[in-house]
Amino acid sequence: MQITKHEGVIFIGIHTFFTSLGDLERIIRCPGRFKFEEHNVAAHSWKVSQYAMFFATLEELNGAEINWKSLYEKTINHDFAEVFIGDIKTPVKHASVELKQMLAHVEEKMMEKFILEEIPPSLQSIFFERMKEGKDATMEGRLLEFADKLDQFYESFAELKRGNTDKEFVYMYQTALTKLLLIPLPVSIDYFRNEILRDAVAEETQINIEILTEQVLQQLKKP
Amino acid sequence: MQITKHEGVIFIGIHTFFTSLGDLERIIRCPGRFKFEEHNVAAHSWKVSQYAMFFATLEELNGAEINWKSLYEKTINHDFAEVFIGDIKTPVKHASVELKQMLAHVEEKMMEKFILEEIPPSLQSIFFERMKEGKDATMEGRLLEFADKLDQFYESFAELKRGNTDKEFVYMYQTALTKLLLIPLPVSIDYFRNEILRDAVAEETQINIEILTEQVLQQLKKP
Amino acid sequence: MQITKHEGVIFIGIHTFFTSLGDLERIIRCPGRFKFEEHNVAAHSWKVSQYAMFFATLEELNGAEINWKSLYEKTINHDFAEVFIGDIKTPVKHASVELKQMLAHVEEKMMEKFILEEIPPSLQSIFFERMKEGKDATMEGRLLEFADKLDQFYESFAELKRGNTDKEFVYMYQTALTKLLLIPLPVSIDYFRNEILRDAVAEETQINIEILTEQVLQQLKKP
Amino acid sequence: MQITKHEGVIFIGIHTFFTSLGDLERIIRCPGRFKFEEHNVAAHSWKVSQYAMFFATLEELNGAEINWKSLYEKTINHDFAEVFIGDIKTPVKHASVELKQMLAHVEEKMMEKFILEEIPPSLQSIFFERMKEGKDATMEGRLLEFADKLDQFYESFAELKRGNTDKEFVYMYQTALTKLLLIPLPVSIDYFRNEILRDAVAEETQINIEILTEQVLQQLKKP
Amino acid sequence: MQITKHEGVIFIGIHTFFTSLGDLERIIRCPGRFKFEEHNVAAHSWKVSQYAMFFATLEELNGAEINWKSLYEKTINHDFAEVFIGDIKTPVKHASVELKQMLAHVEEKMMEKFILEEIPPSLQSIFFERMKEGKDATMEGRLLEFADKLDQFYESFAELKRGNTDKEFVYMYQTALTKLLLIPLPVSIDYFRNEILRDAVAEETQINIEILTEQVLQQLKKP
Amino acid sequence: MQITKHEGVIFIGIHTFFTSLGDLERIIRCPGRFKFEEHNVAAHSWKVSQYAMFFATLEELNGAEINWKSLYEKTINHDFAEVFIGDIKTPVKHASVELKQMLAHVEEKMMEKFILEEIPPSLQSIFFERMKEGKDATMEGRLLEFADKLDQFYESFAELKRGNTDKEFVYMYQTALTKLLLIPLPVSIDYFRNEILRDAVAEETQINIEILTEQVLQQLKKP
Repeated sequence: MQITKHEGVIFIGIHTFFTSLGDLERIIRCPGRFKFEEHNVAAHSWKVSQYAMFFATLEELNGAEINWKSLYEKTINHDFAEVFIGDIKTPVKHASVELKQMLAHVEEKMMEKFILEEIPPSLQSIFFERMKEGKDATMEGRLLEFADKLDQFYESFAELKRGNTDKEFVYMYQTALTKLLLIPLPVSIDYFRNEILRDAVAEETQINIEILTEQVLQQLKKP
Repeated sequence: MQITKHEGVIFIGIHTFFTSLGDLERIIRCPGRFKFEEHNVAAHSWKVSQYAMFFATLEELNGAEINWKSLYEKTINHDFAEVFIGDIKTPVKHASVELKQMLAHVEEKMMEKFILEEIPPSLQSIFFERMKEGKDATMEGRLLEFADKLDQFYESFAELKRGNTDKEFVYMYQTALTKLLLIPLPVSIDYFRNEILRDAVAEETQINIEILTEQVLQQLKKP
Repeated sequence: MQITKHEGVIFIGIHTFFTSLGDLERIIRCPGRFKFEEHNVAAHSWKVSQYAMFFATLEELNGAEINWKSLYEKTINHDFAEVFIGDIKTPVKHASVELKQMLAHVEEKMMEKFILEEIPPSLQSIFFERMKEGKDATMEGRLLEFADKLDQFYESFAELKRGNTDKEFVYMYQTALTKLLLIPLPVSIDYFRNEILRDAVAEETQINIEILTEQVLQQLKKP
Repeated sequence: MQITKHEGVIFIGIHTFFTSLGDLERIIRCPGRFKFEEHNVAAHSWKVSQYAMFFATLEELNGAEINWKSLYEKTINHDFAEVFIGDIKTPVKHASVELKQMLAHVEEKMMEKFILEEIPPSLQSIFFERMKEGKDATMEGRLLEFADKLDQFYESFAELKRGNTDKEFVYMYQTALTKLLLIPLPVSIDYFRNEILRDAVAEETQINIEILTEQVLQQLKKP
Repeated sequence: MQITKHEGVIFIGIHTFFTSLGDLERIIRCPGRFKFEEHNVAAHSWKVSQYAMFFATLEELNGAEINWKSLYEKTINHDFAEVFIGDIKTPVKHASVELKQMLAHVEEKMMEKFILEEIPPSLQSIFFERMKEGKDATMEGRLLEFADKLDQFYESFAELKRGNTDKEFVYMYQTALTKLLLIPLPVSIDYFRNEILRDAVAEETQINIEILTEQVLQQLKKP
Repeated sequence: MQITKHEGVIFIGIHTFFTSLGDLERIIRCPGRFKFEEHNVAAHSWKVSQYAMFFATLEELNGAEINWKSLYEKTINHDFAEVFIGDIKTPVKHASVELKQMLAHVEEKMMEKFILEEIPPSLQSIFFERMKEGKDATMEGRLLEFADKLDQFYESFAELKRGNTDKEFVYMYQTALTKLLLIPLPVSIDYFRNEILRDAVAEETQINIEILTEQVLQQLKKP
């Protein structure tokens, strides 16, 4: 994304890739919404890689086999495409299946263009593999999905706790919690519900998160 | 975009439209790029409405007829659609004609959804007219285009002046200046070149803007 | 206010006027008060121009005649004088009639000096007309007053909603709402009370805005 | 300035004075100008009290008698009045003697009102004395003036060093340095010129401060 | 800490000391904690010097003898050592007596190094005296301790008032208030309890500070 | 670090660990120094994990064996201890071997306390292993050291490029580059020198980084 043409010389290079990482420190999640605290995509990616490592450890202790290289790749790269398009506003994300597909297609084309222009040919196939959508049905894909939703849970939790009454964050809390509890990772879900969620809802909060949480849990019980 | 459903009641309302204006104060232009000074879309829209009024006045003094209501509508609303999708990162904007069209289509669909859901039926046709793409071939459409490019000129000028060496702003300066000078508004172009540009390039700047400007002017002379 | 003398040359120019617009992006409203969200004078001016256009449309649909050029001029320029003196702190504004007059006089003198020094002679009379106090008894003057108060209403509403307990914002809410409801614009007042205010007070808020609002409405009923 | 009326009770109190100190942390110096680094009035006051203590120590070592209580009072209180009116924009400050006097009068009236309303009667005379203009002809008054100009010197120095090309800071640097060197404090001036200024101009800077400084020194030599 | 070696020349100088003051404007108190409002060490030092002057005045009116020079020195310099080590996070501060002593030792060594390298030899003994730990048993040492705790009281008060539910600030409020009320300064304590604390707890706050305060007062009554 | 005691119940829990991750988003690197752009510890950790993955891939392509789980653990956790003590100011870091050891000891004790108090007993040994100093002599330890220095290289590079004349960043650039080039990772060093460094120094920069770089390279050639 940085300077790839400099006085007639054309660089194809990893320096361009490395400086583009800095762009993700400047992209703020949930653009346009009022929030008490802002989070950038770089810091979010790090938290996702922390959550994923914790739950992968739990799953491994319970007998699962973890491909650590894959989990590492998936978590740190899962939002790299935002370097091209930014964090699309939530209304767009939820607008319609068709619009979502169109945007996914735009991102894919931008990523392709980037890899072909900036990454040395000998590494391009590795980058294509590494940068593709990571939320697949593998153990690592499910752990990524779980960790990503968990960060949405924590982001919205913190806003509600501090008294942000914008409905957006109530909706984000409900959605993230619901989706998280439906991911096929029984050991992780169990630990989250019985240890983490219990401690979280016991915090003193400006908005009553305990009730919100209870509603989500009741809703999930319905057949 | 705010709370449209509240405990079972469905609001269709201008309150939602008015609170969505605040979202544009939180959307930062040129997301992801390093810049010495940030600009939000609301403040940008105001500057565009100021530039447009000035040049419309000049054109009127030189015999043109101005539809002031149209100019007012076009300038203050020209970036309202960013409330849905944010300020798309520049690489996307310039990626390909196809991608641009896809994004324009996404924005259009979002706007349609917004007007149908939030604006009272009796005002919907007015909003559809007011929110459509304003950069048409009319005098007011050209003045909007001119004013919008002029703000890009000033934003990139200020970054270069303060020593921002990111090539992005060199490119933005060259592109904005080139496009601006090609808009069919001879009186405005003339005034801009002979009065404003002359004063601008005479400023002391960290990066040599005088040479950059001269290159653009030379390029435009070529047949 | 930018560089008007450069190595012996004296510029009189619109470039100086245009760069001074950027100063209003850096002037924060309600200086010195704690607030959850800051607003600059440029973005405020844009929101005022949006509110005014909406209510002018309503009034026109109800038979009023709108001078759109005048409304455009009044709304985008109404706080330009803050480029000279900044947003004076509220205690000063309300201190005494005498002090308010003295400050208005200072602003007027600064504006005069600016127009005579920076604006080309052929445009000075237009600028004197355009930059004078816009809140007069015309339809457009009343719409400006209404829109300006409405932005104070929304700014204080948002602080109270998020739990800002500083009495300043309670006072600002009460004052803005009271003044707004007394402006002689029956159609706009009616729409505001029955549509916008109803939706606003129905929002979930940290501080009870519904009661505050009721108190203002009761107070206004008194003979 | 905080909440002085609370549910019918009227507080006259030091709590109001203490919370008003926080307002000065939120008032930014040089409002409206672009700057690489912002300074609030509270931090500025502390730096002034540090500079003043240093030069008072030097003067005392050279035989002067220092009233330390007075110097302490003068330095920490010298900008307290900005709590009422904010940091007035520079163009206003330099506009005309008449305008400056009018603003000084506004500040004085606000201070009077504040002391009478918020400070307990038994302490009012102390506050009137402590809050009055401190830059008088006493040793302590001159040290305050010297320290205040020195902070302007350092603020503008830092902007020029980092490449801020806005003429405002060149002018501030020249003015602060000139005024500082004319204050009747020979020991302090001598130390400043021979030790501090020598080290300052030897720094690597984006804008050539050495030449600017030399021009000021040459100008001061003229009869 | 600025540039002390420049192209082979070694500066020993006050310019280095003065520029290091700016570092304290960039050091934020309570690093790592979420807070609605940030405070830098420079502004904190100024507020401490204001509180101390007020209570010293009260004590003097009640017969105490105040060494104003000492109080001035102690208050403005009491956190200067943070220029070396920053504001250590609270958990470290409270970790253990041994760790606290180790950190105090680190700071002391850094201060010694700074004075020997940057302060001219003729002034070194003055700086060693001025920069040593100020919270001793003298009247001025107790006033410094009182004023420093009072600023912690006000910082945590403001966070609780605005709805910050992080337990850190509840703990800071309780601790600061408890320690403050135990400092052997009966006149100041009395005034604080009967005038300031009464007004503070009467404010409308998001978190119930009145109860928190009552708990502290009850706890202190216990034998 | 968050609320571990809540109304008599004692939580030992991962919720406390997860919320402490947010603290690292609020800890700014290089505290106290002026910088054009701030970086938090969370985002830094993510960039380090990206650099490390890239160079590990290169080394693997050249025959090395990579323990991906270990690299993942080392990179994302390497600065977690800053949650306790913050980013210690650079002067302290370089002060003396003894002081550095004392601070390392403080961090270690804090980490021990944290793991024993917050992490469930069954996971404590994993956390002790995972949180220990990662920069050992293994391939993964060297890759961590390389990636951490590379981020210092990029942080100082960006400040110099934009014209930050503070000597701190010149020193950081020289030190990071020198240390990086001495790490025993020939394949990575080679790629860095021939591809990345070449592209980096070819950028247009406010401060001449090409010369600075050449000096470091010359210095390293000396026997």
